[in-house]
Amino acid sequence: MAGDGSDQRALQYEQTLMYGRYTQELGVYAKEEAARLRESGQRRSVSDRSRTLDLLEYDKGRCAKCRICTVRCQKFLISRVGEDWIFLILLGLLMALVSWVVDFCIAICLQAQKWMYGGLDSNVFLQYLAWVTYPVVLITFSAGFTQILAPQAVGSGIPEMKTILRGVVLKEYLTFKTFVAKVIGLTCALGSGMPLGKEGPFVHIASLCAALLSKFMSLFGGIYENESRNIEMLAAACAVGVGCCFAAPIGGVLFSIEVTSTFFAVRNYWRGFFAATFSAFIFRVLAVWNRDEETITALFKTRFRLDFPFDLQELPAFAVIGIASGFGGALFVYLNRLIVQFIRKQKAINRFLMKKRLLYPALVTLLISTLTFPPGFGQFMAGKLTQKESLVTLLDNRTWAKQGIAEDFDYIGHSQAWKHPQLNVFVTLVLFIVMKFWMSALATTIPVPCGAFMPVFVIGAAFGRLVGESMAAWFPDGINTDGTIYPIVPGGYAVVGAAALSGAVTHTVSTAVIVFELTGQISHILPVMIAVILANAVAQSLQPSLYDSIIRIKKLPYLPELGWGHHEKYNIRVEDIMVRDVRYITLNCCYRDLHNVLLTGHLKTLALVESAESMILLGSIERAQLQSLLSQQLGRPRRLEYIRERAAAEKKHLSVVSNPGSEDGSQRASQEVRFQISTEESSFSPTRPVPQKPLKPALKRPSVVERPTEIPTGPNDNSGIALKNLFCASPDTEGLEDDGDVEDDMTIREIAEWEEKQLDEQVNFNNCKIDPAPFQLVERTSLHKTHTIFSLLGLDHAYVTSIGRLIGVVSLKELRKAIEGSVTVKGVKVRPPLASFRDSGTSSSENEATELHKLWDRHKSMSLPREHTPSESDEKSQ
Amino acid sequence: MAGDGSDQRALQYEQTLMYGRYTQELGVYAKEEAARLRESGQRRSVSDRSRTLDLLEYDKGRCAKCRICTVRCQKFLISRVGEDWIFLILLGLLMALVSWVVDFCIAICLQAQKWMYGGLDSNVFLQYLAWVTYPVVLITFSAGFTQILAPQAVGSGIPEMKTILRGVVLKEYLTFKTFVAKVIGLTCALGSGMPLGKEGPFVHIASLCAALLSKFMSLFGGIYENESRNIEMLAAACAVGVGCCFAAPIGGVLFSIEVTSTFFAVRNYWRGFFAATFSAFIFRVLAVWNRDEETITALFKTRFRLDFPFDLQELPAFAVIGIASGFGGALFVYLNRLIVQFIRKQKAINRFLMKKRLLYPALVTLLISTLTFPPGFGQFMAGKLTQKESLVTLLDNRTWAKQGIAEDFDYIGHSQAWKHPQLNVFVTLVLFIVMKFWMSALATTIPVPCGAFMPVFVIGAAFGRLVGESMAAWFPDGINTDGTIYPIVPGGYAVVGAAALSGAVTHTVSTAVIVFELTGQISHILPVMIAVILANAVAQSLQPSLYDSIIRIKKLPYLPELGWGHHEKYNIRVEDIMVRDVRYITLNCCYRDLHNVLLTGHLKTLALVESAESMILLGSIERAQLQSLLSQQLGRPRRLEYIRERAAAEKKHLSVVSNPGSEDGSQRASQEVRFQISTEESSFSPTRPVPQKPLKPALKRPSVVERPTEIPTGPNDNSGIALKNLFCASPDTEGLEDDGDVEDDMTIREIAEWEEKQLDEQVNFNNCKIDPAPFQLVERTSLHKTHTIFSLLGLDHAYVTSIGRLIGVVSLKELRKAIEGSVTVKGVKVRPPLASFRDSGTSSSENEATELHKLWDRHKSMSLPREHTPSESDEKSQ
Repeated sequence: MAGDGSDQRALQYEQTLMYGRYTQELGVYAKEEAARLRESGQRRSVSDRSRTLDLLEYDKGRCAKCRICTVRCQKFLISRVGEDWIFLILLGLLMALVSWVVDFCIAICLQAQKWMYGGLDSNVFLQYLAWVTYPVVLITFSAGFTQILAPQAVGSGIPEMKTILRGVVLKEYLTFKTFVAKVIGLTCALGSGMPLGKEGPFVHIASLCAALLSKFMSLFGGIYENESRNIEMLAAACAVGVGCCFAAPIGGVLFSIEVTSTFFAVRNYWRGFFAATFSAFIFRVLAVWNRDEETITALFKTRFRLDFPFDLQELPAFAVIGIASGFGGALFVYLNRLIVQFIRKQKAINRFLMKKRLLYPALVTLLISTLTFPPGFGQFMAGKLTQKESLVTLLDNRTWAKQGIAEDFDYIGHSQAWKHPQLNVFVTLVLFIVMKFWMSALATTIPVPCGAFMPVFVIGAAFGRLVGESMAAWFPDGINTDGTIYPIVPGGYAVVGAAALSGAVTHTVSTAVIVFELTGQISHILPVMIAVILANAVAQSLQPSLYDSIIRIKKLPYLPELGWGHHEKYNIRVEDIMVRDVRYITLNCCYRDLHNVLLTGHLKTLALVESAESMILLGSIERAQLQSLLSQQLGRPRRLEYIRERAAAEKKHLSVVSNPGSEDGSQRASQEVRFQISTEESSFSPTRPVPQKPLKPALKRPSVVERPTEIPTGPNDNSGIALKNLFCASPDTEGLEDDGDVEDDMTIREIAEWEEKQLDEQVNFNNCKIDPAPFQLVERTSLHKTHTIFSLLGLDHAYVTSIGRLIGVVSLKELRKAIEGSVTVKGVKVRPPLASFRDSGTSSSENEATELHKLWDRHKSMSLPREHTPSESDEKSQ
Repeated sequence: MAGDGSDQRALQYEQTLMYGRYTQELGVYAKEEAARLRESGQRRSVSDRSRTLDLLEYDKGRCAKCRICTVRCQKFLISRVGEDWIFLILLGLLMALVSWVVDFCIAICLQAQKWMYGGLDSNVFLQYLAWVTYPVVLITFSAGFTQILAPQAVGSGIPEMKTILRGVVLKEYLTFKTFVAKVIGLTCALGSGMPLGKEGPFVHIASLCAALLSKFMSLFGGIYENESRNIEMLAAACAVGVGCCFAAPIGGVLFSIEVTSTFFAVRNYWRGFFAATFSAFIFRVLAVWNRDEETITALFKTRFRLDFPFDLQELPAFAVIGIASGFGGALFVYLNRLIVQFIRKQKAINRFLMKKRLLYPALVTLLISTLTFPPGFGQFMAGKLTQKESLVTLLDNRTWAKQGIAEDFDYIGHSQAWKHPQLNVFVTLVLFIVMKFWMSALATTIPVPCGAFMPVFVIGAAFGRLVGESMAAWFPDGINTDGTIYPIVPGGYAVVGAAALSGAVTHTVSTAVIVFELTGQISHILPVMIAVILANAVAQSLQPSLYDSIIRIKKLPYLPELGWGHHEKYNIRVEDIMVRDVRYITLNCCYRDLHNVLLTGHLKTLALVESAESMILLGSIERAQLQSLLSQQLGRPRRLEYIRERAAAEKKHLSVVSNPGSEDGSQRASQEVRFQISTEESSFSPTRPVPQKPLKPALKRPSVVERPTEIPTGPNDNSGIALKNLFCASPDTEGLEDDGDVEDDMTIREIAEWEEKQLDEQVNFNNCKIDPAPFQLVERTSLHKTHTIFSLLGLDHAYVTSIGRLIGVVSLKELRKAIEGSVTVKGVKVRPPLASFRDSGTSSSENEATELHKLWDRHKSMSLPREHTPSESDEKSQ
């Protein structure tokens, strides 16, 4: 809680990525530094030691030996601790521990439920109560805890991480509170036995870990303040998250790349591999030390035969699994979105649920756990198995259909749950698939920290097992005709199905690798690859990925992909989509212009041009900088200064005493500079508590509504006080008040008059941080190029210049609209990478081009406040 | 041979990547197109069919039905064939066939050698002759064939592909001739049994395939002319190359990403996966159909036990393998470079070898094959085994040291080669490793198409086997103390060693994935990952990767990586490294300026500024454009025109006849325009045959030397004829000559006078292609930002502007120098990603900063012609 302010500041850095916002001070410093380096070329070869001695001389006064020692130790600490690999090892270690502890707690929770259920076998009703109450309590606690502590912890976290890695600041998403809420909430949610996964949240938890660790490590060394480094570390953290969740380092790295990145720096790949391997290693070593395992092996080890894993003629069946999984995956994403939108649309339900926040999770849990109650409907769908047990049985290498179950089982016999005295195993499997399908889609809408990967994975495995069992029943002696009998292995089909369905839902191919690492066998590589690719091709042509769908549902500011081969995108230029009405300030403007610009605009940075006639772009200034300039001009300290001066002048008028007024003035100026710098820093800290609303994360608050209550649109009436409220609520301003020995005896009318006068003064930009190199495009830059530059460099806006003259601005919003074609409420038109499988010819793309222009025209004619992106509204609420 | 010209033109596109070079014509077209789209918004919803009818109306004259049918078929073909996945499937299929055929031929070659050697077992001398002559003949043929047909086919091809994917044009690297030379050369080289690999060349072959296929497919549809698409397809092709070489789709994709890319677009990842999987599938299916295999399995299938693959206490041994492999990998790269540099430096040897081009390959082959002669020294190092056989035996899951070899071997008994009656198996292994190590390093310097991956892989496997056998001898009953005896599996160590050493040499971690796919077992995932990461950490801190080393040896224009956390890079600005003396042309310049600029400069594009005073950057013009402008102004047709006009004027002067001279003039103008466009296209075709030099690829020719023979530096004497030779040797110019009915009766003096007059005219840029959006930086842009932008966007130069005024230019060369710090002859300072493992503290980095400035000063004072990058010299030789 104490760390929030500084954390937000750290995040502000991330927004800029590695591009831009070079402050004036830094620039001057860098220039001097470079000049120094250039001049003293010879002195560079001086060794570390002599520099230590230099330092020693500098600090002659103290005990010399002791100093050397301290300096060396400090140097060693900084040089070692500052290195990436220490950070990555720590991150891996930490996440492995977290993962293991969470798994351990979940296992205990699940055991407790089993024990309760098993102990009450005398009375079915009591048994039912125990079976149902336990998850309801856990889920409700999880939901409530998360809501109270950090509502940002709700959900998977992958969409948010994708957005953050894109370079957008999502406030409060990487704080310690969120970490605690996510870990505890996740443990309780998974401990309830609902069909939820831990993989998405673990990506978020790992990123949280990395952010917190980075903050911690910055106490030791200087490297951790680097802006671009944070993003790189977060990318590695995502890999660690998946890696230590499944003990799948390679799959983890690939999955996190596919899910979070558009353009990937290969150098980050190393960090991911390093950290994820270490993390997976520790995670599995913990299991060995805990005597769960004899040695390090896969999490869901399979024992398929190696010699003849599958026949070539079985490939069509695998292809069928892939295609069906593709449709299934698309259906899952659609269903999930449908449920969310249904609940949101039904105003009555929505209002009711919003009031009783915990009712919705409780109701959903009640419904799902009632249906899985083993003596009830659960007996037809292996209801008593936990997710892990289901997966283990589904990946079993024995065939169920032919030989029946439970004759030669050497372990606890979970597979018995699949066998029902009256029902065929096929019926059980079908019921399992159908029920789990909608249950998982429903359960993932509960506002607790949860992912959807594992449930989908299990459903896919069940589907694969179903196909495999059918094949085994169809060809009891295998397909091979060359003499040797190789019976069909339904477990292999389960592996293929699991990879295909999870790949279809997440639009990734790396689920193939995850499945190999999870099962410890790679013999089915070709069937798995074929199925995953087919599933992706189908799913991508129908629906966006689950994460993109959530991004759209949550309206996160993410830039969609450009599809393959869209030629019309080459024909659209920046001049077609840019906003020509740029908010700018001129070098010789007065404070009134500043005031007006700040009141009307909402962009995070403003363009600084030479003059309104020449419009030559000089740089960009952050909004906060301008706010501090304005607050400095109109603030109370300056007014007190004015009052003091006025009083002095009156005194002077009365008695002609020689007063050092000019000296006082210069003193004041230097004071002002100091004040400005400190204000600038503290202006980032939140002045109002963040309101907590369930189901809607904080970033969706329509802060446009809040604004007018603070700043009346009428320009003059009492604006000074309003401005003061808005800008000067920082402690520094209050601190300066004390040194005045005059009373603020001005009336409101006087204040207004004084402010009017102040506003007409010309702005002094001398101590203002100006970014001299904001990103520029020219009006002929194509949409394709613009998109690439935006996504490569993580920009959120770029100025459009024509021979140095500012003529427009393009922000993420315009670009997103131009690419998406249409922003409908229910339709999610994020263009998937394999979408070219869908539309043949050029007709559809031309439609898009038209929509784009329509949209643009619409955009020109009216600007809907509803369509403000979260980042903008966030920034407005500062 | 016929396709060279157009191929080069296609490559010219690639140089630009997706950024820049928007021609004026295209821009106007695009604008009109956009306007049209905007206006006719409603008509967009018209279906395909009505458009067919439109087309029909347009073509009313012909048979309607037939036309509809044709149009539809064509439409269908274009829409289908134009799609990526068809292309990728074709590419995969083709490469699988190529790979299989190459493998088949290699197998036949190797069998023939065995047969010859086996048949002559009566006489050792004859046997030796057969054993030695066969590879010498094959290698010599391969070297000679490659030299004659396409010297670009020499070597691995991965460094060149890395450079091409970076956006640099390497001429002749993607032609049909190169394809033929590479495939046949590779087959012969590998058929000789030398320690060479097929993986690097296959990356190149796949890229060649993709380029040729793309050209072929462009006959059908319109998509294939897209510039950025070519790069994307080449990236996928690299994955296919590795994928179908090892039947390792996932590893192939990852390896190709690591080896060729700096920033990777995740959308390309899909294509890679799709094509590589298809290719690997077909490659393995061919083996099944050929009855080599029963079903689709791994290439080097292992049969390690699944239950207890390794003990936790064996991990230190795996770590030792990793670290030792790291040192070994670095040594290999160093050795390889040392051999190349030794041969280059020794002038006498060099000159001799250059003369007798095929002597060097023959000598090296003779040496290596003599040493491996089985009855000779070969008996101590399993000399009679081919590379594949060695690998199979090394990955065997039996232990050699404990139980002896060859008692219970059910297959041909290749492992017997490892057993020597007098020698221990350890000695054999050590000898094998040591001998193969330098042999491989030496063999890869032979100028034939060959890679180093497979030899290194085998050496690594042998090293792993050595450690494994030692462990097995040390702990005969395994390490585990829990009761059950799990003996140590030396084959697992071999797997780890192979992955670690190949990872160290190539600086990749994806060798781990390749090893899993090659062996079909993933049970050793954690040891492999740990060893690979350690090997990479060690190797990267000592040497660049083999491919980076070759890039430096061949002086390819590639931008090295920025290391991790180099803060000083943030403090260096573009203004510190930019070249202030920019070659530019002004809007109102005369042809003489153009002429001078073209004579002195060597950049591919030139900046166009408003005027020398304002220096406002308007755009950039390609050199070829200016050349065509100049040739048009000074060319023979225009002079003939002038002669004709003069004659007409004289005639008019003699007899006052009303002649339609003005109409003639306008006709001429229109002719000129046509002429200019056609010249512009043909100016890309090579006018001179490319001289072929062995060991030095064509791109290293110091073309600066060739230049002065064509253009005398004296400005006036006969420059017209020289210019004509240089610029106007295209057939179009000759064609236009015919329409003149006047004789070229001007004397050389007259021509010079006339040209002098022409050169003073002002340039008309109206029909010139100008890129209105060249990439711009400002002087305060940091080196880090510049590097990122350059490598992200694949730029080769960027202009530095200050409020619209051109003040400098930064090209790849400056940037490379700034980053590398020093360009020494033997030291290769490409900074590896994991280099932070090496240098602790800041001392080394400050040294670099100094060197940078020194370098820059040196660069300012003198410009060495030796340091021109190949792309520049290529471009000069146009």
